[in-house]
Amino acid sequence: MTGRRPGEEGLIARFFRPLATSPGAALLLDDVATVPHVEGRELVVTTDAIVAGVHFFPDDPADAIARKALRVNLSDLAAKGARPAGYLVTLALPRDWTVDWLEGFVEGLAADQEEFGVSLLGGDTVRTPGPLWISVTALGYAPEGHVPRRNGAAPGQRLYVTGTIGDAALGLLLRQDESLALTWDLRRADKEWLLDRYLLPEPRLSLAGVVSAYATASMDISDGLVGDAGKLASASRVGALIDASRTPLSRAASRAVAADREALAVALTGGDDYELLLAIDPDDADAFESDAAAAGVPVTDIGALVEGGGVSVEANGRPLDLGAGSFAHF
Amino acid sequence: MTGRRPGEEGLIARFFRPLATSPGAALLLDDVATVPHVEGRELVVTTDAIVAGVHFFPDDPADAIARKALRVNLSDLAAKGARPAGYLVTLALPRDWTVDWLEGFVEGLAADQEEFGVSLLGGDTVRTPGPLWISVTALGYAPEGHVPRRNGAAPGQRLYVTGTIGDAALGLLLRQDESLALTWDLRRADKEWLLDRYLLPEPRLSLAGVVSAYATASMDISDGLVGDAGKLASASRVGALIDASRTPLSRAASRAVAADREALAVALTGGDDYELLLAIDPDDADAFESDAAAAGVPVTDIGALVEGGGVSVEANGRPLDLGAGSFAHF
Repeated sequence: MTGRRPGEEGLIARFFRPLATSPGAALLLDDVATVPHVEGRELVVTTDAIVAGVHFFPDDPADAIARKALRVNLSDLAAKGARPAGYLVTLALPRDWTVDWLEGFVEGLAADQEEFGVSLLGGDTVRTPGPLWISVTALGYAPEGHVPRRNGAAPGQRLYVTGTIGDAALGLLLRQDESLALTWDLRRADKEWLLDRYLLPEPRLSLAGVVSAYATASMDISDGLVGDAGKLASASRVGALIDASRTPLSRAASRAVAADREALAVALTGGDDYELLLAIDPDDADAFESDAAAAGVPVTDIGALVEGGGVSVEANGRPLDLGAGSFAHF
Repeated sequence: MTGRRPGEEGLIARFFRPLATSPGAALLLDDVATVPHVEGRELVVTTDAIVAGVHFFPDDPADAIARKALRVNLSDLAAKGARPAGYLVTLALPRDWTVDWLEGFVEGLAADQEEFGVSLLGGDTVRTPGPLWISVTALGYAPEGHVPRRNGAAPGQRLYVTGTIGDAALGLLLRQDESLALTWDLRRADKEWLLDRYLLPEPRLSLAGVVSAYATASMDISDGLVGDAGKLASASRVGALIDASRTPLSRAASRAVAADREALAVALTGGDDYELLLAIDPDDADAFESDAAAAGVPVTDIGALVEGGGVSVEANGRPLDLGAGSFAHF
């Protein structure tokens, strides 16, 4: 069943109004949303778009596309220690869009609104002669004067990441070439793990309070660990030293790396991790680790900020050559 | 000269960083922008996207495309009596983009930043296999508790518009069919006026303070006067009565209407005016008109809100049949 396609007003009323749970959204009946001021909190704003065929596969499930569009933005809020205030979504629909597809898309947004406690504030629907795309702007509240930037790291501080690194980049390769499951000796569950990690990033919003409390510099890893560590180091005018042997890999990624040496470079430099990269003062490391554990987010010390510039990657004390170093979506 | 195309980082540094004049933009070196709280002001947010071939012509000048993308958003702020706090822009570039084009685009943004006193806060650049598109999110400050919505109008109130109506819709037709200049008996300056009004909307930000002070309901007219008056009336659960003979037309539009009766329907129902539609209490009408004149924005009383529902259009006391009634970009 595809159903009859409504016009823009009907589309907003039927699909998007139920998502506008915040009073400031005015049920999407107005031209703007209002964003209340919260005492002691600073408003932060970020925007990221995803395009079919560039950032996701056109045949990805509609709900996963919606969630990815929202989550890559929530991930930026998490990296800055902010809790979401709401989001706006612009959806550009190609000529052949169906009601079924849009129902799935809206279900994805609804599920993530529930999971991350966020409301739709507004948006726009346009049609496009090209591929489908989604642009999201997310607003969040961070403790006033405690927004960790990219440029706050200093030599001697430790470098931490959340979760595991490289799954999404390996998942993307696997999506493009199924035979890699054999090359990498993956079990069925490993394969699904990697594919899922590409499909659906996990914004680390439950770590937001801990990020505000401890991080001297922070960002989310969207263009690969090594490249993004380089950006953080460069903004802070320091160097970064990453110990590849301590970089956390999932069981699936570990199997791939054990079977195929090139998979390690993919894991360390490939994009779409959406884990957090944090600089932490060594005196705070114990407290940070224990608070992160209490928040239910695994964190791993993968190296240090040092005098100088650039990123050096070592494994068991020896330099590792990774080739290009960074992945760019653009 | 097309010049060498930089990667995303170089592109931000060279083209967009100079636009990030607000401290909250952190020179676009971070993942989020901060938006300061202003005492007694309420933060409002809106988003609108434009797509090549749908909302503008691919061969429009790059600076005009940029300005239109920004201005359709600033127009929403003006309609809510808000002054701009800043904006975020996502630009999706097709494969064949050139440095020349991007220079023009950025010059357009820079000119409007100067004209409207607004700073770039952040954004995203992506590539697309389809046509170029731009998504803008604009943030603004409105007097706390004085944001006029669409639903505040009451029977007996007057209906006002700013500027002149219908120029952009006529300009679009003219752009699609140059021979209409003859049909409409246009002078060269008239033709250019109509084309320009389609190309470059005029956000009525200088009226923002007057809107806050007097409007009981307000919106910008993007989908045609009659259709949008219907939306405002419907949100307010009232009817609207528009006197077509009092609706302000430019000299160019007047010539078109005098020569071609169908041009009147186009002017009253066509899209892209980006003028404001305001409901004003009759007791405030004199003060409103005089304050609007002081702000340098022409306003015209074109009718009234009445009991009931729907929109009636009259000319010299007789009903006018306009056909479809509203233009939809979607």
